[in-house]
This record gives sequence, structure tokens and C-alpha cells, in this order.
Amino acid sequence: MHLKSDTMSQKIAALAAGEYSALSLAEHSLERAKKLASLNAFVTFDDSLVLKQAEVASQRIASGRPISPIDGIPIAVKDNYLTADYPTTACSDARPIAPENIDATIVANLRAAGAIIFGKTNMHEWAYGATNTTSNIGATKNPYNQEHITGGSSGGSAVAVASGMVGAALGSDTGGSVRIPSSACGIYGFKPTYGRASRHGILPLSWSLDAPGPMARSLADIEVLLPFFMGQDPHDPSTFNAKPFRAIVKTGTPRVLNLYGEGFERSDEVDLVIRQAIEKTELVAEDYELTDLWRYFSGWETILHCEATSYHLQALEKNPEGFSAVTRAHLEAGRRLSALELLEAQKLRASLMRSLYYEMPDWDVLVLPTLPIPAPKHGEDCQEFGGRKVTTQDSMTWFCWFGNMSGLPCLTIPVGVSELGLPIGMMLMGKAGRDEELLAVARIFDQRINGCS
Amino acid sequence: MHLKSDTMSQKIAALAAGEYSALSLAEHSLERAKKLASLNAFVTFDDSLVLKQAEVASQRIASGRPISPIDGIPIAVKDNYLTADYPTTACSDARPIAPENIDATIVANLRAAGAIIFGKTNMHEWAYGATNTTSNIGATKNPYNQEHITGGSSGGSAVAVASGMVGAALGSDTGGSVRIPSSACGIYGFKPTYGRASRHGILPLSWSLDAPGPMARSLADIEVLLPFFMGQDPHDPSTFNAKPFRAIVKTGTPRVLNLYGEGFERSDEVDLVIRQAIEKTELVAEDYELTDLWRYFSGWETILHCEATSYHLQALEKNPEGFSAVTRAHLEAGRRLSALELLEAQKLRASLMRSLYYEMPDWDVLVLPTLPIPAPKHGEDCQEFGGRKVTTQDSMTWFCWFGNMSGLPCLTIPVGVSELGLPIGMMLMGKAGRDEELLAVARIFDQRINGCS
Repeated sequence: MHLKSDTMSQKIAALAAGEYSALSLAEHSLERAKKLASLNAFVTFDDSLVLKQAEVASQRIASGRPISPIDGIPIAVKDNYLTADYPTTACSDARPIAPENIDATIVANLRAAGAIIFGKTNMHEWAYGATNTTSNIGATKNPYNQEHITGGSSGGSAVAVASGMVGAALGSDTGGSVRIPSSACGIYGFKPTYGRASRHGILPLSWSLDAPGPMARSLADIEVLLPFFMGQDPHDPSTFNAKPFRAIVKTGTPRVLNLYGEGFERSDEVDLVIRQAIEKTELVAEDYELTDLWRYFSGWETILHCEATSYHLQALEKNPEGFSAVTRAHLEAGRRLSALELLEAQKLRASLMRSLYYEMPDWDVLVLPTLPIPAPKHGEDCQEFGGRKVTTQDSMTWFCWFGNMSGLPCLTIPVGVSELGLPIGMMLMGKAGRDEELLAVARIFDQRINGCS
Repeated sequence: MHLKSDTMSQKIAALAAGEYSALSLAEHSLERAKKLASLNAFVTFDDSLVLKQAEVASQRIASGRPISPIDGIPIAVKDNYLTADYPTTACSDARPIAPENIDATIVANLRAAGAIIFGKTNMHEWAYGATNTTSNIGATKNPYNQEHITGGSSGGSAVAVASGMVGAALGSDTGGSVRIPSSACGIYGFKPTYGRASRHGILPLSWSLDAPGPMARSLADIEVLLPFFMGQDPHDPSTFNAKPFRAIVKTGTPRVLNLYGEGFERSDEVDLVIRQAIEKTELVAEDYELTDLWRYFSGWETILHCEATSYHLQALEKNPEGFSAVTRAHLEAGRRLSALELLEAQKLRASLMRSLYYEMPDWDVLVLPTLPIPAPKHGEDCQEFGGRKVTTQDSMTWFCWFGNMSGLPCLTIPVGVSELGLPIGMMLMGKAGRDEELLAVARIFDQRINGCS
């Protein structure tokens, strides 16, 4: 047993085989989280709460009656999910929420299945940024090199998984917040199709873009977790008629498009790793140029700012000092936009969908790097790649916003490391509502690139 | 044969039986449209275009090779649908469109099925009003009493059907524009679920509320027409994955809710007719009170104004005099709204859906009057009913906006006449995407109330 490096699926097998107990697994998690406290992964975790859950799970498993495959598995929760036992702050001082015995639907689903709700992870304040350097408890540190950022906004969740503190973690994704830190920390992260997974009990950033997602150490782990995420939830109207998740095995050769274009530049290093990875798949990947990416990106930003401001308006008026200066500036920007500007942005979204579905050669999976560069160093304001100089913030959402603007399911898988030893991730995108097909195709990629089965 | 009063289905049967030819039917239509020109139903129709289509249809039918059930049936088209052979003006001087050999998808479908595209009908300018008294060719007149209005915005289509000029007509509905004039003129009008019918080639009023719909003299006629309206159209992204229409026969007793509440008042006369009609169905109809209707209504208005202004912005800047003063005032209102106000309105829409699906006792059909009063007289600015005094415009959309704000399928069927002999319609609403179920239930209503089979 390799508690640090095992995937969740391996932990599930080890628990079932009695190689260790849920209690010893929880104790190891607590120990590791404390040992690596300098990574700043957690806002809070509580030994007694964790051990109490683990004892009950241990008894169930010992008596041969586990209630689900994930019974006894410690799972970390981003600090914008409501949890019955932990406070929720979204790493902001603006309006902390005391535990009120309410779990977000996904947390409730996991808890009911016996998972150990381990603690709340550090995040970019209100998820309103992709670096994870703006947080009321300070920045997260990349486990591959603490001088580098993790990306965000689900940075703490990525650290907790990548450094072997927990079996898996929950993130949320409005412009890449699951995928960005997953890629930067060398793990797997999945954003389901908009509206297939419940956001009930997750503090919103931008409700027409937000999607919750699992972060884990293997594709198999992601697939074990998705039934707890997906399907109709009467408390989240965006999930109206949403199908539950059922893993499938794909037959047939997927049609792969390798996207590029002005606004989708990447560093030579990342480009090479991605191209080599695609080669390993032995699949034909046609290069396809997207146009008008800047217009779509500005539409995504407009929707994001307007919806975020709409959600935070009361707090912004009552307690402006509760927000960090940078978050407050974003929120003020949303107040100045007109209804006509917002409608233009919403029309761009429809136009993007049209181009993805009707103007491109038919495809099963779209390929992009998840990030244009490996994780930057702390303190760097700008990044240069592909002939561009952009803010570190924009370099993080560079490709990822595209998945939220279009609502398509997106996955990041690790495919290599940079010269400095930092992880590089590949993003795979599927068609709307076809999350199962995307994951089935991703298994082919993962197998041929990483040898994972 | 009763050319004036036959339903389309009866005309179809008569054509098939050789009782008359498509050509003589077209000649009768032309004659009748000219004879009743004072009703002001048409912007334009062209004898030679009509007769040319009818001759070809006559030959097909005579040779025993009709290409569809509606081969040879004259159909009138609201003047906001693009037509290959007629200009399109939306009854405004702002930006008339010359025929460019382009049909709206629905027109193209009907034309391909052999229907005679008869002419373009009078409408409320840009569909931006529900009285049909604002039009660059003047108001439509109610065929039951020319001193009364028809309602709108598809007023000309309603007149053309109600007075037996054509077999059926096309309308569009953003706040009731199919249902209002259908009810006021004693015919059947149907608004499909938002996103199940193509709007490609229909000039928009408010794209997130607009739905096209058929207007006819029977429920059977509506069901014959719907396959030409519904299903996925690559040119209209709102129809993504939309199912085509397939009529079904309903078994089981429908659960009926009779809606009322503050903002849903109606005149005593209309209330009595509706209650008597419900009694005739012998179905149990539970009264159900809706709350917050004013908030939802204001949300509908906000969405309408913003989207209409967004669409017309360039024309408003280039050619403001092209619009009537009242339409221009509406469009100017849309410029003053903020992104945050629009988002509140969009949130209200989500909240309305939630309340309809999750907070009400389960239902199969919702019942309302289509209009709170029979068709008002021309020249009346205000209406009084149920203890309220409201503008004639607001009295027309009084119940109907609710179907667009929620996106649900809505039907109006005639159920009685007022003391003055003006028609009174009942509105039936179904669940989203369940248009077929709604129509199956409506057949039960129609049979028991009107003896229609």
C-alpha cells in the first residue's frame, strides 16, 4: 500500500481487501495534511469530526456492510460548498456562513454513501480568479515546487489530492477552476456539461457558467465519483431533466480535432508535450482553426462580471471591506455594464454553440492544452508565450473559459512534465450532454499516453 | 361544401374527394379576401402568385399524387416571416425587406408540402404590442364586429382564418401574439414549448420569448400543421435536440389546475363562461392561487424590452422615424435598463419555472381564460375588470405573457361568446416539451365543451 500515491480506486480495493481500515486511512490523511501544512491546502479540517466519521465507516466495512464503493474514503471539499459540519467562507471575509446542518447536494450524496467529509479547501476568493493567490488565508503552494502557484480557484482541492492527503476532492468551475489547478498539480479534473450536475448548496460565482466537478488521481476515480454529481436535482433548476451518470465503453475510432487560433496560443514547451501525447494515442487528430476567440472571450467575461455582481450586490453595498480590493474592483465592473452589453454577450454564447455544432467538421472530442504554460512562479504578474504577453490571471483561463462559455463537458488529464518538472495537462472536450462518451474516449487517451487502464 | 366555415381538415377531405379543386379553393380564397378587405387582414397577396401555386397543386391532386395532406391548402403568413416571393415589413416603415428568395423554415416546410403560400398578414408593428392597432397599414377589424379590435400581434392571421379566407395561418407569440387574436376572433391558436419550433427566418421581437405557432379553425387542423413547425432546425440553435411533433392519444384522467391570483383577475362574464366550460369537461379542476405574478410580469417586460432593443438598435439609430412613436418609446426604454436589472428578470424566469414544477401540486394541464375580457372596441385606451383598470394593451397580454416567461406550450380554444356576441377563449397550458400531451388533453376539453371530435 502506498497511501501517498494510491489512486482512490486503489484505496477502495485496499479497504475492501482489509489491507487497512477506514480509520487508519483517515488518520493517515490527517497526519499528511498536517505534515504538508505549508502547502496551505485547507481552510479547516477537524480531527474529531474526521475520526468520528471514519470509525463508523470502519465498523460498516469490518462487518462486511459498506454502503457504497466510496464508504470510508476521505474527500476534501472546496470552501464554497455548504457543509453541515464546517463553516463556509469562500476564502473571503465578506460573508462567512456558519455550519447550519445543510450540505450541498453533492456533499450530501457523498456523505450518504459513507465518504468521509474531510475538510474545506483553500480557494481563490469567491472563485473570482484563477491563480489561487487571492485568499483570506493566503495562497496555495504547488506540491511539485512550492515556489510555483497551483492555479485556481479550486487550488486547495488540487493540492489535497496531488499530495495524497485525501482520496479525491470537490471543485467548481466557471472559467476553468477545476481544470486549471488539476492541470497545474498533475491530477485529473472534470467539468460536466452545464446543467448535468447539481450546484445546490454551492455558493455561485456566475450561475450560467458554474459547474461543480471532481478532482482525483485517475480517470477511474472520476468515473466512480460522477454518479454522486450528476442527474436531476429539484433544488437546482439548471439540472431539469438531467440524466444521471452511467459510465459507458466506447467502440469505434473517435474523430479528434486539435484546436488552435488567435487567442489559443501556447508555449513551445506545452505545444510539444501535447503534440507528442496526441501522437502516442495513434489517433488521427485534425488541426482546426477557431476564429473570433477574442469576441467570445469578452462575452464570457461580461457574463461572469454581471452575474457575479448580481449575486454579491447586497454584500458589496453593506460590507465592501469584506472583499479583497481586487475582487471588489471586479464586482464594481459588473455594475457599469448595460443590459444591451449583457445581451450581446449572451448572443455570443449562442453563436459559439452554433459554430461548434454546425460550422465545424463533425467531431467526437476537441483537444487543447489545459494551460498555455506550466504553473507560473508566485509573484509573477505577467506571462509570455506564443508571441503574447498576458496577465498571469488570463494565462490561467486562456483555454478553459471556452468550456464554460459553450457549456461542454471538459476533462484535464496529466500528459507530461515541463523542463522544470512541473506537470502539463491536456484538455479534452466532448459534446453537450455526452459526458459519458467524452470519458470513454478519454480512457483511450489515458491508456495510450499514460499506460493507465 | 362550406368554403367559408369548413375547417382545414374538412377542406383536405373535400380536395381528396374531388368536391373541388385546389385551384377553385384558391380562387375562393382570393375572392373572399377581396370581399372582406375592410377587415384589413392582409398587407399583401398576389393573385398570379397564388393561382400559379394552385394550378400546380391541382394537377398533382388530380393525377392522384398529392405530396402531403396540406397539398393545395391556402395558408396565410404573418408579415414577420420571410417569404421567397413576398416582401416582409413587420408592418413597419423601419426596414422593409424585399423578397430575396428566402423562406422562413416553417414557410419552406409548408411550401415543400404543397401548401399555397397565400399572402402576408397585417400585424402589430414588429409584434411589439398586442392590440393590432399600431400598424403602418392601419388596424385589423374583428370579423365578429368591426367596431372591435382583433388583438394581436398576429391579428391579420386570425382574421384571415376566422373569416374563412384561408385554411390556416402562421403567427408568432412573445407574450400571447398567437393566442390573443385567436381568442378574440374565435379560433384555435397554439404556442409550442420554447425551443421546439424553428424561428429561422422569422423577424424576432424577443428571442428568448418568441415562439411561432399555427392558427386554425380546429384542433385537428393544429395537429396537422405542427409537424411543419417542430423539431430540430440547424438554423435555429434554440431548437437544439428538439423532438419532431407526433400526435398522441392520451389515456387516463388529466389533473387540471384552474389558476387564479392577484394579477390574474378576469371579468365576471369571462369567468362564468370559463367555469361553465370546465364543468362541461366533467373533469376535476382544482383552483390554485399563484402569487408574485406582478414580479414575474415585470421580469417578462424587462426581458422583452431589452431583447427587442438589442435587435433593433442599429435601425433605431439610423432610421428612428421609421418606427411609430409608441414603438420607438418602447425601444428607448430598453436602452436605459442595466445588466443587473436584466439578470434579475432572468432569475425571475428561473424562479417561475421552479414554482411551476416544484412548488405546485402535480398537474397535467393549467387552465386560464385567454383574455380577461372579450375583444375591446377600437379607440378604448383602458379596460375595467375584476376591480382593476388597466390599459387595453395590458388587458390583452394579461394571462398570455405567463406562457412565454415560463416557455410552456399553450393553446387557446374557443369556448363561448359574450353577451355582445364576441368570442371567449380558454387557455390550456402543458408541461415543457410535452406539447403532444397538452394537445391530447385539449381534445378531451374540445370534445366535451364544443362537441368537436
